[in-house]
Amino acid sequence: MPSPIEAEIHRHAQRINAVLESLIPPDRKDFLSEPSWYHLATGGKRIRPALCLMVCEAFGGDSDRALPFAAAVELMHNMLLVHDDIADGDTVRRNKPAVWVKYGLGNGVNVGDYLLARGLHAVMMSPVEPATRVKLLEVYLETFERTVEGQALDINFRCNERFTAEEYLRMAILKTGHYLVIGMLGGALVAGASEAVLHCLRKLGENLGPAFQIRDDLIDLTAGKGRGGVKGSDVREGKPSILYAHALSHSSPGECERLLDILRKPREETTEQDVAWVIGLYERCGALKFAQQMADKLIAEALKELDTLPVEQQPGLRRIITYIAERTT
Amino acid sequence: MPSPIEAEIHRHAQRINAVLESLIPPDRKDFLSEPSWYHLATGGKRIRPALCLMVCEAFGGDSDRALPFAAAVELMHNMLLVHDDIADGDTVRRNKPAVWVKYGLGNGVNVGDYLLARGLHAVMMSPVEPATRVKLLEVYLETFERTVEGQALDINFRCNERFTAEEYLRMAILKTGHYLVIGMLGGALVAGASEAVLHCLRKLGENLGPAFQIRDDLIDLTAGKGRGGVKGSDVREGKPSILYAHALSHSSPGECERLLDILRKPREETTEQDVAWVIGLYERCGALKFAQQMADKLIAEALKELDTLPVEQQPGLRRIITYIAERTT
Repeated sequence: MPSPIEAEIHRHAQRINAVLESLIPPDRKDFLSEPSWYHLATGGKRIRPALCLMVCEAFGGDSDRALPFAAAVELMHNMLLVHDDIADGDTVRRNKPAVWVKYGLGNGVNVGDYLLARGLHAVMMSPVEPATRVKLLEVYLETFERTVEGQALDINFRCNERFTAEEYLRMAILKTGHYLVIGMLGGALVAGASEAVLHCLRKLGENLGPAFQIRDDLIDLTAGKGRGGVKGSDVREGKPSILYAHALSHSSPGECERLLDILRKPREETTEQDVAWVIGLYERCGALKFAQQMADKLIAEALKELDTLPVEQQPGLRRIITYIAERTT
Repeated sequence: MPSPIEAEIHRHAQRINAVLESLIPPDRKDFLSEPSWYHLATGGKRIRPALCLMVCEAFGGDSDRALPFAAAVELMHNMLLVHDDIADGDTVRRNKPAVWVKYGLGNGVNVGDYLLARGLHAVMMSPVEPATRVKLLEVYLETFERTVEGQALDINFRCNERFTAEEYLRMAILKTGHYLVIGMLGGALVAGASEAVLHCLRKLGENLGPAFQIRDDLIDLTAGKGRGGVKGSDVREGKPSILYAHALSHSSPGECERLLDILRKPREETTEQDVAWVIGLYERCGALKFAQQMADKLIAEALKELDTLPVEQQPGLRRIITYIAERTT
């Protein structure tokens, strides 16, 4: 039995799917629609774009006018996943072969580019005042660029022996913070919400983005990330997690060396024992606890941020933020 | 001794480089500036963006106001090359390792995304009326999307046994036609040129884009494309050239079968003899002659297109078009 908010998201998801189908007609024989829908169909919940419509309504806006932007958010989200899977060499996405595995590397890169192109097209056709449309474009482009900057740090800090928790936070804000709230920002813009609301949403992203990323890092070590349910993907990929950053500065030189050796191994050579040893180290040096506390602190700060808004504007947003803070993906 | 038009392009190139350096400061330590400039610096002529400034001036515009758009065109050009090299598995670009070879696949994909993000940013900061800025954005996004659509055909028509000359033309217009004139269209828009001029430029792209692509296909078989000067790269990659399309419908079943066998081989298994046999077939079946005639016809049609403009507007554009039609890249 879905909760009221889940039923609401589901209702919005159907509206968003209709727009996505008009933006990328599923049956077109152009070698783009098919791989696009192969990927779009795997993640049907459309939570990010639904948040766009919900925030728009929470601030008194007409969510029909936010629909193209909401769809554009979903398209950017999918574009980034398609390109990320290539960058990470991930072969499985949501228990199916990744786009680049199914259609080849060239199509993987190109389909990602196409999803972004359609996303930008959708933003341009938003039925709002020209000045608002420009603001929507600015938010969309800024989010895309910051996310790409974060991705650059993510790729290049791999196995870096001087990686710190501060750098982790900077990377996580860039890679996930902007991106987390882009839909909500768009919804607020369409509703004509105040600067205070926009500022609050940005701050929420800066806190919740890293918090969720840290949770994700923790889940990877305990339950696996749903990429076939394998634990320790990040260890196998040598990803710069906050656990890794903490362990580097809280372990003996010998332990650091072994940690780096394991992270640097090609993923297919990393054994179960390697992963278990790394998890053991993260426990011993306090990294797991540190990460959990950091995530809790960031979420608490995010919720405090809501208090800066005029009282009458708080409940609508608090309901949405509480919901996403309680979800585990 | 450079011709007057070459000296003019060189002068514009310096202005464009200054804008590129402000858009992507070369010394920033973000894992993006370095690979961006590694690629941007390899192609220093900046002909595409120079054409933007020249067309702007030819129609009485202030080319300073077209500078950000010109730089954006150069950024899209480089973005497409970076992603194309990944799609084609090309390891060498302008006699240096391709970006994805030098910095890894993940950075290759991501740096391409970054160049596009900076290009879009540049368009957004164009110092023109808001309505003109929206038009510039529309041209930029449409060109990007059409090029991606053409790339999808290019990738997926490889070794397709039913590929036709008509499909080749459709693919070439999408992949190279829009892209060829985007700078000139932007320059004309900034100058406030008439609809007739914009229409003429689009038509020029539809004719010259395929003409240059066909020339490129021919050069690949005679001189090599400067990727280490190896002849027959397209044959090794199984690319859908117009020669291939013509040969399919003008050769015996046995020859077609052998042609397909060679194109389908992994590139490292294709021998010199294979390439020589394919060139021989293209000669025998009239494909080389057909391609040359098609290129000549398209260029003639493009030049005729100029006659549709008011007489006083013809010379400036004719000078530019004649120059690019005479260049061999």
